Amino acid sequence: MNNWLVSSGDNKEIVISSRIRLARNIKNLYFPHKLNEEEGRDLINVVEDAIYTSSEREENYRTYYLWKNDILDNYIYLDKHLVSNKLISNYKKAGFILNNEETISIMINEEDHLRIQCIVEGLNLEEAYEEANKIDDLLEEKLSYAYSEQLGYITACPTNIGTGLRASVMIHLPALSMNNEMNGVLNALTQVGMTIRGLYGEGSKSSGNMYQISNQITLGLNEKEILDNLKGVVNHIITQEKMARDKLLSVYEYELKDRIFRAYGTLKSAYIMSSSECLSLLSNVRFGVELGIITDIDKHILNNLIVDTQPSMMEKIFNKKILHKENGVYRAELIRERLNK
Amino acid sequence: MNNWLVSSGDNKEIVISSRIRLARNIKNLYFPHKLNEEEGRDLINVVEDAIYTSSEREENYRTYYLWKNDILDNYIYLDKHLVSNKLISNYKKAGFILNNEETISIMINEEDHLRIQCIVEGLNLEEAYEEANKIDDLLEEKLSYAYSEQLGYITACPTNIGTGLRASVMIHLPALSMNNEMNGVLNALTQVGMTIRGLYGEGSKSSGNMYQISNQITLGLNEKEILDNLKGVVNHIITQEKMARDKLLSVYEYELKDRIFRAYGTLKSAYIMSSSECLSLLSNVRFGVELGIITDIDKHILNNLIVDTQPSMMEKIFNKKILHKENGVYRAELIRERLNK
Repeated sequence: MNNWLVSSGDNKEIVISSRIRLARNIKNLYFPHKLNEEEGRDLINVVEDAIYTSSEREENYRTYYLWKNDILDNYIYLDKHLVSNKLISNYKKAGFILNNEETISIMINEEDHLRIQCIVEGLNLEEAYEEANKIDDLLEEKLSYAYSEQLGYITACPTNIGTGLRASVMIHLPALSMNNEMNGVLNALTQVGMTIRGLYGEGSKSSGNMYQISNQITLGLNEKEILDNLKGVVNHIITQEKMARDKLLSVYEYELKDRIFRAYGTLKSAYIMSSSECLSLLSNVRFGVELGIITDIDKHILNNLIVDTQPSMMEKIFNKKILHKENGVYRAELIRERLNK
Repeated sequence: MNNWLVSSGDNKEIVISSRIRLARNIKNLYFPHKLNEEEGRDLINVVEDAIYTSSEREENYRTYYLWKNDILDNYIYLDKHLVSNKLISNYKKAGFILNNEETISIMINEEDHLRIQCIVEGLNLEEAYEEANKIDDLLEEKLSYAYSEQLGYITACPTNIGTGLRASVMIHLPALSMNNEMNGVLNALTQVGMTIRGLYGEGSKSSGNMYQISNQITLGLNEKEILDNLKGVVNHIITQEKMARDKLLSVYEYELKDRIFRAYGTLKSAYIMSSSECLSLLSNVRFGVELGIITDIDKHILNNLIVDTQPSMMEKIFNKKILHKENGVYRAELIRERLNK
């Protein structure tokens, strides 16, 4: 299981990462929004008791209590997609348990008591599901889940009821975007019960041609069917994207090279850069890497830049408070350093 | 006397080149537009006899007969500012005599019988005038000029009558342009009898923040007064430009660096580039060199790119016919090669 930020992976890969999230709740306990601080923190201890049952897991996992954490650190885990905004807003009673590789995160007292999440690089839904499932089994040995024979897992929001499973894939679709074919893709996805969103989750608009595709339906299908459906849809989109790429390459070779190398040159040269320009240029460079046109940079450097150019992460990296208006200058500096190595 | 395309000169210099042009006509001979081919070509021979009177000049000068020249070559000399469009349109009876350094060009049968031109780098109007004057004296020994005691030198167009002197300076004004102060400069210049034009002469709009400032009045002032007036005006504009630069540097240091290095990065990376974008980016890079922010490139490389990225020059350099739609691709290739050295 490889972390999408660390592994160099396959540079030709269109799918950046696969994510599995299982929503679970404890029987006879109020949903998190009704829990007070003490009850919330007690639940974290209960979950810890269920996880840290072997010395191996004690070494590989660590608990983060949001109320003890530096606020900055909480936002850094958000930037890395390891916690959610909702978890942070519950910070007085919320925590998460993370493995060392940062591929598995168990959020406690998000919208549901438990959100077991596994993110891996590439299109690897089954592996991610298997890992999340192992944690789920482990927890179920010690905890009594809220479960109905008829409905399945009970969740705080009815959209998650049933399997409690949200499977999603982060995919890079520059050619479909350039060819203005994304609206068609979007409509088709909605019709087969899938959701498509931008890079940073619900409601966020697409930045840098990165899209999160996930199942909308959690009820009435079993886990395998959900994963198979999503995989089928994603493979179909990959085929469309590849066709769009071939078309671009055959008809607009120079325009494409121009766009890709200008983006690379600008990233290496700029002294001020906004977040949205950064994502858009990184997308063009990534496209160049995926096409084999740019060969002197590895994709994991680009993945890291997506995360590291977020304001909280930059404060961590530069080890100083950065004013909002200075973000562009520090972002540009960070990018120049990484790409001119 | 240094050719502006060859010498590395002073990188801090705001004035790129100084140009002197003397318009002269032969007594009792129709103006060029009334001459037939034979009469026109005869005049070229007469001028040659006046020039090639020493072995030194025979070695240093060469005559180009436009009707014998390859059309492409004629346009290349146009790109280098050594001949005019008018001369080329008279190609069947026109020629020019050029020195090896390409600083002196004597056009024969342009609008007037003789246009003695001298271009040198930097703000060096006196030296340029001295050189042009030497050629003028030399020609006057053998030729009878059309001259009136009352009016001075007679010219085909009344705007040149009197001294027949047009002095001009090519100046780079990025800071005044960025600060939107060019309109004020332009109005002030017109009021003191000066003309301001873009990079490629009459009617051409300014490209790359390059402006040609020249005297409008040729009558009623002597040569020294004309040169002193122009020099005074140019020095005043230089002061304004320097103030605008200081202002930009103190208030918008990062924005300026950003603009300059993005331009440099884009020039080094692009695969398609239009002429106007090229001039605009070269201006930004030149600005960086003039400010001492960019130190790894010499200004004469930028000067050469201005000329060498013109369509005719590119056909010469790549030694092939280039279609109009391919210009952007070859231009980008040429620029990448020169700047990535």
